[in-house]
Amino acid sequence: MTFETISEQRCFGGIQGFYSHASSETGGTMKFAVYHPPQAATGKVPVLYYLAGLTCTEETFIIKAGAQRLAAELGLMLVAPDTSPRNTGIEGATGDWEFGEAAGFYLDATTPAFAARFRMYSYVTRELPALIAAGFAAADTARSGIFGHSMGGHGALTIALKNPGAYRSVSAFAPIVAPSQVPWGLKALPRYLGEDRVAWQPYDTVALLRSGHRFDGTLLVDQGDADKFLEPQLKPELLAAAAKDAGQALTLRLQPGYDHSYYFIQTFIEDHLRHHARALA
Amino acid sequence: MTFETISEQRCFGGIQGFYSHASSETGGTMKFAVYHPPQAATGKVPVLYYLAGLTCTEETFIIKAGAQRLAAELGLMLVAPDTSPRNTGIEGATGDWEFGEAAGFYLDATTPAFAARFRMYSYVTRELPALIAAGFAAADTARSGIFGHSMGGHGALTIALKNPGAYRSVSAFAPIVAPSQVPWGLKALPRYLGEDRVAWQPYDTVALLRSGHRFDGTLLVDQGDADKFLEPQLKPELLAAAAKDAGQALTLRLQPGYDHSYYFIQTFIEDHLRHHARALA
Repeated sequence: MTFETISEQRCFGGIQGFYSHASSETGGTMKFAVYHPPQAATGKVPVLYYLAGLTCTEETFIIKAGAQRLAAELGLMLVAPDTSPRNTGIEGATGDWEFGEAAGFYLDATTPAFAARFRMYSYVTRELPALIAAGFAAADTARSGIFGHSMGGHGALTIALKNPGAYRSVSAFAPIVAPSQVPWGLKALPRYLGEDRVAWQPYDTVALLRSGHRFDGTLLVDQGDADKFLEPQLKPELLAAAAKDAGQALTLRLQPGYDHSYYFIQTFIEDHLRHHARALA
Repeated sequence: MTFETISEQRCFGGIQGFYSHASSETGGTMKFAVYHPPQAATGKVPVLYYLAGLTCTEETFIIKAGAQRLAAELGLMLVAPDTSPRNTGIEGATGDWEFGEAAGFYLDATTPAFAARFRMYSYVTRELPALIAAGFAAADTARSGIFGHSMGGHGALTIALKNPGAYRSVSAFAPIVAPSQVPWGLKALPRYLGEDRVAWQPYDTVALLRSGHRFDGTLLVDQGDADKFLEPQLKPELLAAAAKDAGQALTLRLQPGYDHSYYFIQTFIEDHLRHHARALA
């Protein structure tokens, strides 16, 4: 289990690194970013995974979210993977921003065309954490948290709900909470998982909550009310109802005037990082 | 004097806007970004111009520097123009990252090929401030500061030195301080200004200091010591010597381990914004 260093640059007294490796889960080269806070030079630090949204890469969050300042202050290692396998050569996997490359939906595909490569669920939950643990001595992987944006918020919430104990904290910006019920999911899930909707449930936060899954802690979710995807794709009211019915602790904040962009994310990144830092202390 | 709104998005309680207009100085459409802090909704705020470096656009600083958080706290309007005219159609103005489009060097060209369009000095010092004053009621242009990075640090320093009273504060990240003496300048200045080196002096910080220009305040300059352009292109020791000989107040900080990137800039942006806010209060 080895990786290559693409670049390492000093940032807020720590190191912003980009790396690549041959991924067994996704059958190709994957890139990921790690922000090593200054505290990582002298001891163990908790690990916070960030999953990005449609069209994004391992660079998006690192460049646009303004997260390193507070990660340096709080002593958090940030890990940001890419959003899908790349250069798959699979017919239909490119050319549509809502499906395929850069739109992996953090699931393990089962349809013949996609099953071999589109395994972002196993990549994010198993291969990447093992790589981080083996590759970076400062990573205290027993203290891990996860968060994300949009498709990545969906990834963070579903992964946290399905892996009790693996993550001590979870949060999301403008997550897709019910892909089984919205156009993004109705387009992607059948192509990755087939037409049987039962197979979609493990990748649907609302369905997971309604089928008994719980996160031992509070879900923090921020959503802008000027987000053009709010009504058709995101539907936080479905999350609120499912969490209420399930007795799942949820802090859902509707932020007036904010849209779906990283200008929204950078505004509230501090609240999220402090939320995670408290749980990971 | 009108402009079009490309986009406006909420960010840290204020508005991140992108705009375009027909520029008389540069003879084409120019884009610029404005961050309107929350305080601009209810009163006047000072204006801080940021000039970007080679290859950059009006978006670079806005996306990568993490400046909005503190601009919102301090009540600073941030204005970021593009780095040159675009789509000029001039032979030789594209295809070289060190010259032409995205490499305007904040000067008024005098050579026949470039004189009509490459007028970034007049654009930044006259046309853009007039547009900001006319277009944004909250802009208190009597309180203006200027800063920049690399080629834009060169722009900020030379503009501040040549326009006493117009800017109350100036700072730079990794500026080109002596373009007359380094490869970037030796390539660009003759093509924009001709072979007579006397014509280059108004666009050379070290030459301006040595010819009697002063800034009524302290120049704040940060420079990473792992910057690959440090020795061949940036030469802060020439600035230090010229400032010392001139009696010009200068705070020059060599930052260990930092390179030329926005990871360097975002690390020290808070110091710069506070430096400007103090002078602009």
